[in-house]
Amino acid sequence: MSIFPKRAFPSAKVRRFLEPGPIVLISSSHKGETNIMTCGWHMMMGYDLIGCYIWSANHSHGLIRKSKECVINVPAAHLAAKVVGIGNCSGRNGDKFAKFGLTRQKGAKVAAPLIAECHANIECRLADTRMIDRYELFIFEVVAASAAARARLPKTIHYRGDGAFMISGAETRKWRRLFRPAMLDE
Amino acid sequence: MSIFPKRAFPSAKVRRFLEPGPIVLISSSHKGETNIMTCGWHMMMGYDLIGCYIWSANHSHGLIRKSKECVINVPAAHLAAKVVGIGNCSGRNGDKFAKFGLTRQKGAKVAAPLIAECHANIECRLADTRMIDRYELFIFEVVAASAAARARLPKTIHYRGDGAFMISGAETRKWRRLFRPAMLDE
Repeated sequence: MSIFPKRAFPSAKVRRFLEPGPIVLISSSHKGETNIMTCGWHMMMGYDLIGCYIWSANHSHGLIRKSKECVINVPAAHLAAKVVGIGNCSGRNGDKFAKFGLTRQKGAKVAAPLIAECHANIECRLADTRMIDRYELFIFEVVAASAAARARLPKTIHYRGDGAFMISGAETRKWRRLFRPAMLDE
Repeated sequence: MSIFPKRAFPSAKVRRFLEPGPIVLISSSHKGETNIMTCGWHMMMGYDLIGCYIWSANHSHGLIRKSKECVINVPAAHLAAKVVGIGNCSGRNGDKFAKFGLTRQKGAKVAAPLIAECHANIECRLADTRMIDRYELFIFEVVAASAAARARLPKTIHYRGDGAFMISGAETRKWRRLFRPAMLDE
């Protein structure tokens, strides 16, 4: 799996990667332990605010809650088998970076490691813990982001449940002409 | 736009439609007024629980808050131009069902109208209002659902921001063999 050059990406534009709803890999670390989990239950809650459902049975739940940060990594379709594998084993049984041959990369703002092989990396700080106990909902603020320097948008992996996936991004449309100017970027 | 037969769909399986992250149309009604809004900021928060970001500036915000219900409709790709149009005008200026030539259908459990032309219709009751003021986050419980009787999954519309869309669903994969049995439906 090749590692490719990345560049800083504006925090306020990470919706480009997350709003279409791909499966993401959430990486975290706490007191020397690192982990990766797959997550398909996430949403934009503001231009630099992201909600993620992280079940208390997930090993990452504790790491993220204690360290108060994580990285949301967006894998392209070529990583699909690893993504499924990561979602089907627990970090309690060993380091998933090693197990899946993924590369830790140092973040700009958080101690949690970025996954180098992913197309985009969104560094997050836990912004609100009040919905965790009731809804397993973590609300994160984006504090930095980076993405593949090559301009092409990746094909991404979208989960339907029950082992079924959509591979998306091959077919795209620009409909800026149908928008009111206020709805578009400057 | 043809209307097609639908059948009841299990509430606990609506993740099949929402977890891949499509743009949805949210329909609502209150005291004889109906409206439709587009929404790309939503997430599963449980098998029958859905979080939606509905901005207070949206006309639908008040209708849903007061009526405490809505329908989350999943449009297939052939409705894309209407979906964009609905997102670029306000319900304050007239009935969007009429304006966009869409057909109201009666729901099983809620008074808000279903959009007949959409592939799936998820009837929701407002389950938690506590995150509305702070985060514009509505938490809905699924109380009924229906979907096109034809088995084929639709191509859906996924928004990247700034007028750019992905049309998804043409390329699909089944990877059940890579899953632990507990992660799959029975």
